[in-house]
Amino acid sequence: MTTDVKAIHKEVADMFGQVPNWMRELPESALSGFWTTMRDLQLAETALPNKTKELIGIAVAGATRCRYCALFHTEAARLFGATDAEIAEAAAISGHTMYASTFLNAVQTDYVEFRRETIEMVGYVRQQQAQQKRGKQREAAAH
Amino acid sequence: MTTDVKAIHKEVADMFGQVPNWMRELPESALSGFWTTMRDLQLAETALPNKTKELIGIAVAGATRCRYCALFHTEAARLFGATDAEIAEAAAISGHTMYASTFLNAVQTDYVEFRRETIEMVGYVRQQQAQQKRGKQREAAAH
Amino acid sequence: MTTDVKAIHKEVADMFGQVPNWMRELPESALSGFWTTMRDLQLAETALPNKTKELIGIAVAGATRCRYCALFHTEAARLFGATDAEIAEAAAISGHTMYASTFLNAVQTDYVEFRRETIEMVGYVRQQQAQQKRGKQREAAAH
Amino acid sequence: MTTDVKAIHKEVADMFGQVPNWMRELPESALSGFWTTMRDLQLAETALPNKTKELIGIAVAGATRCRYCALFHTEAARLFGATDAEIAEAAAISGHTMYASTFLNAVQTDYVEFRRETIEMVGYVRQQQAQQKRGKQREAAAH
Amino acid sequence: MTTDVKAIHKEVADMFGQVPNWMRELPESALSGFWTTMRDLQLAETALPNKTKELIGIAVAGATRCRYCALFHTEAARLFGATDAEIAEAAAISGHTMYASTFLNAVQTDYVEFRRETIEMVGYVRQQQAQQKRGKQREAAAH
Amino acid sequence: MTTDVKAIHKEVADMFGQVPNWMRELPESALSGFWTTMRDLQLAETALPNKTKELIGIAVAGATRCRYCALFHTEAARLFGATDAEIAEAAAISGHTMYASTFLNAVQTDYVEFRRETIEMVGYVRQQQAQQKRGKQREAAAH
Repeated sequence: MTTDVKAIHKEVADMFGQVPNWMRELPESALSGFWTTMRDLQLAETALPNKTKELIGIAVAGATRCRYCALFHTEAARLFGATDAEIAEAAAISGHTMYASTFLNAVQTDYVEFRRETIEMVGYVRQQQAQQKRGKQREAAAH
Repeated sequence: MTTDVKAIHKEVADMFGQVPNWMRELPESALSGFWTTMRDLQLAETALPNKTKELIGIAVAGATRCRYCALFHTEAARLFGATDAEIAEAAAISGHTMYASTFLNAVQTDYVEFRRETIEMVGYVRQQQAQQKRGKQREAAAH
Repeated sequence: MTTDVKAIHKEVADMFGQVPNWMRELPESALSGFWTTMRDLQLAETALPNKTKELIGIAVAGATRCRYCALFHTEAARLFGATDAEIAEAAAISGHTMYASTFLNAVQTDYVEFRRETIEMVGYVRQQQAQQKRGKQREAAAH
Repeated sequence: MTTDVKAIHKEVADMFGQVPNWMRELPESALSGFWTTMRDLQLAETALPNKTKELIGIAVAGATRCRYCALFHTEAARLFGATDAEIAEAAAISGHTMYASTFLNAVQTDYVEFRRETIEMVGYVRQQQAQQKRGKQREAAAH
Repeated sequence: MTTDVKAIHKEVADMFGQVPNWMRELPESALSGFWTTMRDLQLAETALPNKTKELIGIAVAGATRCRYCALFHTEAARLFGATDAEIAEAAAISGHTMYASTFLNAVQTDYVEFRRETIEMVGYVRQQQAQQKRGKQREAAAH
Repeated sequence: MTTDVKAIHKEVADMFGQVPNWMRELPESALSGFWTTMRDLQLAETALPNKTKELIGIAVAGATRCRYCALFHTEAARLFGATDAEIAEAAAISGHTMYASTFLNAVQTDYVEFRRETIEMVGYVRQQQAQQKRGKQREAAAH
């Protein structure tokens, strides 16, 4: 075991109270990169809240059928405050995404048309939201 | 090109009027097994009707995002008589299956319980169907 | 539990004799849409026979490794009359589709060429079928 | 087109300014369930913020390679206020989840051991957090 | 059981000492093609060493979550001389590939640009390698 | 851009002559871990030859349908000396693995039985190999 591996194992043990066996099975050539990602992207404070990152982990685990990840990210999501309702919803949103994507790929939806329609639809919603906002502002100003 | 490869290419050309380029890219060690499967399982008359087999191909292509297969199995399904409505339904059933499976895997549904419930539910439906059948028979006998 | 949830649970229990636990775990925001799909698309009489729809479910479950769905759709397929031979064939067709799609994606098959070849091949088969049909008609007319 | 389909298409057009072509391709047996899910789960205000739901959609699209969904959920995420940094992070978290899950499944990590270790690790972090909190409270009380 | 099935089962039993049950479940229409592929592509001496072919099997099993294949290809890889370090590395390389691909698909990387950059990058490395080689040759000639 | 990001971009540019755009899109929290893995696991000299690692990348790209990875790993495999025949074989082996795994998961093969059979089969092959070796040694000793 190189000095590098020992140092990483110490960091892991400081954070989690142990070095899980699966992490010991990572090849030495992979350990530093994997741990750096886990520490700096998954567990650190970054652009997304930790709860959101773990809910994403649950959703991805469901869509790609990994029981290890479903367990790990559910426990971590709860640690960061996720409720049962939020976990169930992340799972259902992932399911709904898979339904739509499976259908679109199976019927060979024209991508260029899909792209145009999507951009038009989102543009329409933005416009509606702006109009509603202006309407409220006018109303407020009238009082 | 070995004699074997020539013989297989001849069989392919006899059936399709050509040997598509992608089939020429298969390694020689893979060609015989692949063609045997395509000929005897996919294209021959077997337990399942050809239309059903191609609809399965469309559903699998959608769930696993293969545009080659979505195209190929859709053309083949139409050759064997599939309508647009049947193709769209195969795609939607595949999508619905992916929704349910993604959700069940994400929320770590207990498999033993799921198994028990599923067997009970199917047993219940069978019982209902049998009762309805007996009801109809009694009715018919009463006349 | 809202009135809506109660009404849906009643419909489920009327059909299956129970509300399985996994369905109770669906978020309320997802329940109505999921059940509507299951009732109207999967279990109702639609364009495709129920047996075919469940065989598609088995094929998709295999290709995407969902043990819940493999079990559920196998039990449902049997309920709708599928034989062991039909189930095994749906599984093998799904496997063959995955072989072809994996190979085509790995070797980066040119999609435009693949499309042209596929349409030519299917056109050739149609032509052959039409010729055979005309041949038989002439033969029949000659008698 | 049944009355039901017309009513749903009207709802869609009211929200998005149009009925996209891919939605017209959904079989009638699937339309009501699909739209109910999209309206009540994906687009309504539910347990999870809309931005989070769309980021989950992006993550799942990346892990399962759906270019339609990657586009749709990215546009929707931006509509609900997601920044480029948040989108990139959802994509990277999905990638990291896939790395870990691929490794764990490939080396056949013992699930029972993995489960025990994960629960111990999360328990350890909770304990550390509680100690830090008590430490801060004592410090605050001492002043 | 047809003569063909008996002959194949004999070949399997000669090689493995038994016909595993899962192979008996293959439909007759699929058996010959499947066994031909397994014998001529997977187990024969071909372009790639057997150890490499089994390591590929482990990597694919991890990325697509098949516990049967993870087991089978690990046992076969060991039979052909793979070490624990090589197996762990195949698993990690598969994981790293999945990370990169998930990210690239999630952020909708422009494929044309990605292609141009990749070809430029590989061209650059080739040039560097050629320069180093020429440098060494000049050095060797100078002595 | 932090000092860290600049240093990593310099390393990348030194190796590849440029920093590809997709790498610039990685969030800062992910960059160091990702690059460390790419440098130390994928591109360094490790337990597996670089050609083997890139062939694994091609196989995984095919099985999980990533056109970015299929391109990148094919170009890299060629850089490390892979022939067209080796690339085609990696693609076909990946396809064959997906066929078998799809079938086994679809028919719900009993895992415990599968495991026992696999270990017996591999044990049988080992025994045969040992007997052949002893036979050759006896023959050699007899001369």
